[in-house]
Amino acid sequence: MTKEEVQGATEEEQQAQSKKALKKQQKEAEKAAKKAEKQAKMASEQQSAEEDDFAKDRYGVSAMVQSQQKLGKQCFLVLRQQQFNVQALVAVGDRASKQMVKFAANITKESIVDVEAIVRKVEQKIESCSQQDVELHVERIFVISQAEPRLPLQLEDAVRPDGEGEEEGRATVNQDTRLDNRVIDLRTTTSQAVFRLQSGVCQLFRDTLTKKGFVEIQTPKIISAASEGGANVFTVSYFKTSAFLAQSPQLYKQMCICADFDKVFCVGPVFRAEDSNTHRHLTEFVGLDIEMAFNYHYHEVIDSITDTMVQIFKGLRDNFQTEIQTVNKQFPSEPFKFLEPTLRLEYTEAVAMLREAGVEMGDEDDLSTPNEKLLGRLVKEKYDTDFYVLDKYPLAVRPFYTMPDPSNPKYSNSYDMFMRGEEILSGAQRVHDAQLLTERAIHHQIDLEKIKAYIDSFRYGAPPHGGGGIGLERVCMLYLGLHNVRQTSMFPRDPKRLTP
Amino acid sequence: MTKEEVQGATEEEQQAQSKKALKKQQKEAEKAAKKAEKQAKMASEQQSAEEDDFAKDRYGVSAMVQSQQKLGKQCFLVLRQQQFNVQALVAVGDRASKQMVKFAANITKESIVDVEAIVRKVEQKIESCSQQDVELHVERIFVISQAEPRLPLQLEDAVRPDGEGEEEGRATVNQDTRLDNRVIDLRTTTSQAVFRLQSGVCQLFRDTLTKKGFVEIQTPKIISAASEGGANVFTVSYFKTSAFLAQSPQLYKQMCICADFDKVFCVGPVFRAEDSNTHRHLTEFVGLDIEMAFNYHYHEVIDSITDTMVQIFKGLRDNFQTEIQTVNKQFPSEPFKFLEPTLRLEYTEAVAMLREAGVEMGDEDDLSTPNEKLLGRLVKEKYDTDFYVLDKYPLAVRPFYTMPDPSNPKYSNSYDMFMRGEEILSGAQRVHDAQLLTERAIHHQIDLEKIKAYIDSFRYGAPPHGGGGIGLERVCMLYLGLHNVRQTSMFPRDPKRLTP
Repeated sequence: MTKEEVQGATEEEQQAQSKKALKKQQKEAEKAAKKAEKQAKMASEQQSAEEDDFAKDRYGVSAMVQSQQKLGKQCFLVLRQQQFNVQALVAVGDRASKQMVKFAANITKESIVDVEAIVRKVEQKIESCSQQDVELHVERIFVISQAEPRLPLQLEDAVRPDGEGEEEGRATVNQDTRLDNRVIDLRTTTSQAVFRLQSGVCQLFRDTLTKKGFVEIQTPKIISAASEGGANVFTVSYFKTSAFLAQSPQLYKQMCICADFDKVFCVGPVFRAEDSNTHRHLTEFVGLDIEMAFNYHYHEVIDSITDTMVQIFKGLRDNFQTEIQTVNKQFPSEPFKFLEPTLRLEYTEAVAMLREAGVEMGDEDDLSTPNEKLLGRLVKEKYDTDFYVLDKYPLAVRPFYTMPDPSNPKYSNSYDMFMRGEEILSGAQRVHDAQLLTERAIHHQIDLEKIKAYIDSFRYGAPPHGGGGIGLERVCMLYLGLHNVRQTSMFPRDPKRLTP
Repeated sequence: MTKEEVQGATEEEQQAQSKKALKKQQKEAEKAAKKAEKQAKMASEQQSAEEDDFAKDRYGVSAMVQSQQKLGKQCFLVLRQQQFNVQALVAVGDRASKQMVKFAANITKESIVDVEAIVRKVEQKIESCSQQDVELHVERIFVISQAEPRLPLQLEDAVRPDGEGEEEGRATVNQDTRLDNRVIDLRTTTSQAVFRLQSGVCQLFRDTLTKKGFVEIQTPKIISAASEGGANVFTVSYFKTSAFLAQSPQLYKQMCICADFDKVFCVGPVFRAEDSNTHRHLTEFVGLDIEMAFNYHYHEVIDSITDTMVQIFKGLRDNFQTEIQTVNKQFPSEPFKFLEPTLRLEYTEAVAMLREAGVEMGDEDDLSTPNEKLLGRLVKEKYDTDFYVLDKYPLAVRPFYTMPDPSNPKYSNSYDMFMRGEEILSGAQRVHDAQLLTERAIHHQIDLEKIKAYIDSFRYGAPPHGGGGIGLERVCMLYLGLHNVRQTSMFPRDPKRLTP
């Protein structure tokens, strides 16, 4: 447990405390007592020659403060473990001396302590703690790791809602300070909740797909050629030559489909050397990628992906309410809404809705970010959902490997998916015919020599297939109604940030 | 399904065939018949002006061969889907014409076909197929994707056991040919089994740890500084500066422990710019990484990791017998043996065993690869296990952040784990005290400026912790008794290979 402040442990701890209390802790207590005794002895002797341990001054409990300074008869501490905290009381009595109270009061914030205590119900709710109905009456307390007295940021500032900080003139912590001191910022209840939920998204994604018969694959990140002509790609020195970092696992997913894996997914980093300094761009993020063969229509792919997303949303709603509410305390947002089955709109319908709202745009123009957001609001008003699919994008705005729409050559069998008006997935039916792929590449003026291996993958039997890639950090950000993707990346990378 | 050869579908297919036969397939059949009719019409008209589909010559079924050449009354095909294959018969009768038999016989190998057929029991087992008791009597057959007639390698050669090839003078396929044509090589029953089992290893790893309360984390792969001085690290151009590819997620795992995540794991690529051209080195591989805080002794960490490995071994044994036996057909090996609890030997015991076997080595010398293998054989003889832990490595052969053994400064709280005599994991208790860490870094002559951020992570409260990293490809290779890590990497990267 981490000492949070001087003035009051989790459900788990409480259970652990009461269950183990008699057996294990007596043993521990004896051990600890012996250790403390030894430590005190060593401190007084300066050097214990009989103990050949060069590291003895660097671990174990701190020696107790022995001075006789007068102090109060009790002190309160707040002990924190992950998302939870609890008030603890050290009071002079049978089990604690004045010196012990003083020692406890002097433990630096964020130090890690082992505590043995009795859990007692309290009369009045402790509003400042997550465990409001109990407090710990401390009988033993040992410092396991002492924090330096001066912290780069205060945790209570780091969890304060922005509005509250401004109104009451209290400090909040800006994003760069947070990210520069991420080890401490990640200790906030908000960060703990965000990244536990993120772990849940990955698990729900994989479990859903595994149940659907998908196979997990591992694709290489160092690649020999940039498949789409080399823009926005990081270069790596590779022995005597150079290579690139994969912008997506797409080629490899497709090769797996051509290799008869039928349905595959992968979870891994993707790299974009794009000099975009926005709230939603990272140079390295985690891709949740899907690719599958289908029988008759690429809508089979859309249905698989949307159902996977719906399973994720349901799993989060049903199993991560603690985390969602913890985040909402600092960053309030509306609960995330979704429909079953998922709403699917065609691009032409979206353009019509936008025009009706006063936007001027051509049939084959791509959606700008503000227009995507506006469309999200219009869709929410009309259909009451925060999640939908936009299908049949204009062929001109999609990559060369996108299958054209057989009934209208201006459009394509491609789609984006949106959460709260922001894109989280881009996908399509891929061209699985080498000849058509060659023609499409020529049309896009792509050097055929550079994509020969890609095209050749489709020469030895390739089933019709499609897929898409989901940005993990965006899904978490938008599900939680946060406003910056750096909040949902543990150690974000952008054009200006490479550390920690 | 893929057509494998001319002369003879999976359990799933059979079930599907019989279940859907009446309803769905009638519909499909009608659809397909209409499609085929249309196609034939289009082929004769050359250009159907009323259909505005520029891609019409590139998808759909091939037009039937219409010539009247004489042919046999039946032909056998082998149809393959993933790990399974089945014999199919096209015979002249009510449902098939002579032309149709000829068409079927002329379908190029590895083409993808849709087949409608009756499943019939056969009198005599079909030894050459995985589905030995049935064959398919084909009523409709459509080519979905036609393979080029000349294949870069033959699948029957690619699954032939090495010995058999040599003895009978039949072709086998060498590794570079396989890897150069990986899309086809991955279609072999052996490859399908290997990578389905690999998917299982990842799933078992995560599920076991999730049950133990571990949180999955995502760590950055682009990093600003090479933590151990910059050897064997790939350099990346990063906008106007340069960066490195992470050799392991260790620093980030440790930061998460310091950030109070208690127990974390991650699965992701790790990069080693090591010019090692051996059977077990890759420049990019998948790390299964664990890090956890502990209470009293780093053996808590060892126990968590070994139990995770045991759960993986059990899961593979219980749920992946088909895959294991498929691989064994081509690459025979002894079943993998393990003990519960896992055998843990101390380094000094290992040195004693090796010396007894005639090896000359000093107490603090590291183990060479041949000595590791020899030790594996000695341990197998003595303890009958293919999996064990070697604990308490000499401090001198371990990285600077390794916690020294408190009772003997020549040794350390560190360990490796071995499968069939080869290392699959390296791990340790880490130094969690900034001062001791600084001293150890100075001892190793590491530039303190370069690791300042790392050391500072431990200044604000850091619990005792340890962990380790497992190489996914090695685990799969050694579990299956394979002899080259490239067999268990879908798209392997080594100093000489960057493609496909």
